[in-house]
Amino acid sequence: MARPTLRDVAAAAGVHIATASRALNSGTRSKVNDQTAERVIAVAERLGYMPDPVARSLKTARSRSIGLVIPDIANPLFPPIIRGIECRLEADGYDLAIVNTDNDARRERRLIESLLSRKVAGLIIATARREHALLEELHARGLALVLINRDSEGLDVPAITPADADGMRLLVAHLADLGHRRVAFVGGPPTTSTGWRRARAFVDAVREHDLVSRGGWRTSSDSWSIPGGHAAMSELLEDTTPPAFTSVIAANDLLALGCCDALCERGLTPGTDISVAGFNGMDFLDRLAVPLTSVRIPHRALGERAAELLLDLIGRNQVGSATMSAELPVQLIPRASTAPPSPTG
Amino acid sequence: MARPTLRDVAAAAGVHIATASRALNSGTRSKVNDQTAERVIAVAERLGYMPDPVARSLKTARSRSIGLVIPDIANPLFPPIIRGIECRLEADGYDLAIVNTDNDARRERRLIESLLSRKVAGLIIATARREHALLEELHARGLALVLINRDSEGLDVPAITPADADGMRLLVAHLADLGHRRVAFVGGPPTTSTGWRRARAFVDAVREHDLVSRGGWRTSSDSWSIPGGHAAMSELLEDTTPPAFTSVIAANDLLALGCCDALCERGLTPGTDISVAGFNGMDFLDRLAVPLTSVRIPHRALGERAAELLLDLIGRNQVGSATMSAELPVQLIPRASTAPPSPTG
Repeated sequence: MARPTLRDVAAAAGVHIATASRALNSGTRSKVNDQTAERVIAVAERLGYMPDPVARSLKTARSRSIGLVIPDIANPLFPPIIRGIECRLEADGYDLAIVNTDNDARRERRLIESLLSRKVAGLIIATARREHALLEELHARGLALVLINRDSEGLDVPAITPADADGMRLLVAHLADLGHRRVAFVGGPPTTSTGWRRARAFVDAVREHDLVSRGGWRTSSDSWSIPGGHAAMSELLEDTTPPAFTSVIAANDLLALGCCDALCERGLTPGTDISVAGFNGMDFLDRLAVPLTSVRIPHRALGERAAELLLDLIGRNQVGSATMSAELPVQLIPRASTAPPSPTG
Repeated sequence: MARPTLRDVAAAAGVHIATASRALNSGTRSKVNDQTAERVIAVAERLGYMPDPVARSLKTARSRSIGLVIPDIANPLFPPIIRGIECRLEADGYDLAIVNTDNDARRERRLIESLLSRKVAGLIIATARREHALLEELHARGLALVLINRDSEGLDVPAITPADADGMRLLVAHLADLGHRRVAFVGGPPTTSTGWRRARAFVDAVREHDLVSRGGWRTSSDSWSIPGGHAAMSELLEDTTPPAFTSVIAANDLLALGCCDALCERGLTPGTDISVAGFNGMDFLDRLAVPLTSVRIPHRALGERAAELLLDLIGRNQVGSATMSAELPVQLIPRASTAPPSPTG
């Protein structure tokens, strides 16, 4: 049986061939009325019509695909951000292809090369480091780029980030309000803007609230992961028994979960013995054995704004200006993992 | 400043230009010794060298990219499967581009079109339905395809799936061993092989163990989601108060979490009042307020086997035969959400 052609679909749907083509192409579908588009699509499905993708890609100089580069597919932070990006892109008929670097710079370079060789129209990058030569190269080549969640220093590329410093101030104020005076800190990689800003804001806020956080109570992990948090907290707990601090802030939720694990191993209960707080407000935190206090970043809005900005850049055929960057507001979500300090603590 | 060329990199690294090219291309890197490859890559990074991706894609008829089509980016089932796929592909110098259909057939078609227009060498598909015209079309066109997690009926495409029926038998036997006699069931979409097989195996196993599961205690959700499980369980709980069953098996973990929510809303504690079990063994289950009993499917192995199979298909330039399909063994993980029936139950 011959493969059905666009002409067959148009005939069966009772529309002009140009209308059928517009209806079947997500980039031009909005030019056809909804009812007609639905009918054409239904007929195409029934006949098993599929456009020749090679012919289509030759006709359209630039693809209607966007690449998203994320550092860790297993971090529940990303799915709601991805949903926000997809939702905004879909409205303009753009698709999203996601690649996962697993925090490996070599893989990042290769995956970005690969996306570009398949002619994506632009990139949304969630892997930015504060100093990031690859991003400078991409920017210098005039590619449409938007950074999300993290940004990069001295790079004139727009970034949509959460208000990291505000969030950290909210966490420190929350612990101070609960009566904590001695606060430890487990930071993320200081090579990332999130790691750097959250750590700096922690130090500032501790001073502002006249709390104590000695050097030995502050450490940072080289990964944003549960094992990273576990290792960092284990190190902090080795210094003194019982711990001299009554609370700990981790720079993201996965690090905080690792901190909880290290506490439990030593017979300490998060919330009861030592208060623990995270950052990002990832999914599932309210379902944990000890629900985790966190700062909720606006995942979906971050995704939508980044996609919007990238579509603007593509539409104007211009490279971005950092003046369009935005920092979106965050919210403290107190849960059972933070409580007044234990009287024995 | 002119962009550095491959020649510049080769000169700075002190190697022949062909060696530099091989070292920088992940597909040929294994032909160069490790130390040389590392030196060339370091020099390329330092100089900011980037190959022209358009030129490269024109030279290689077929890309070294694979597309992965997943139904729900927010389901924690997928990240460890993705890691398995990436790990195996990377060994052969292939990249993975992931697209998320959100269980929307129209989006699925568009995203697959888009992957094909960007000339992926093959597809791994996690969105299969039991009857799936799109997959038949793709297969008929001779594309290299492998299904993962779910399969499709009467379609001669290899599939790597978990042993769904075995897992369900393990769950029913576990509840019977605990002393449960009255078991409810919340199934997934019966349009998927996982939904269909897990439901059928449940009915068979209940009969085998001489347990009771009346029609009114069995329902299915039209989505594999927390809200789906919540709605289904709420419906089951409306029938009788207190519930006539002492335990419920949900066909996946997200449905089980939704069941737990519906129980809690009615003041019933999962594990204590009603035993609840899920399926898939997704991440974070051991950290929940009531850790969830589940069947662990071999996520990473599923990914690795599917990738291996696809690489075989691509290498032989052949379309797969269902004889290469494999069902991988699963494991019961009992946790606190299942316990002997409450004496008042």
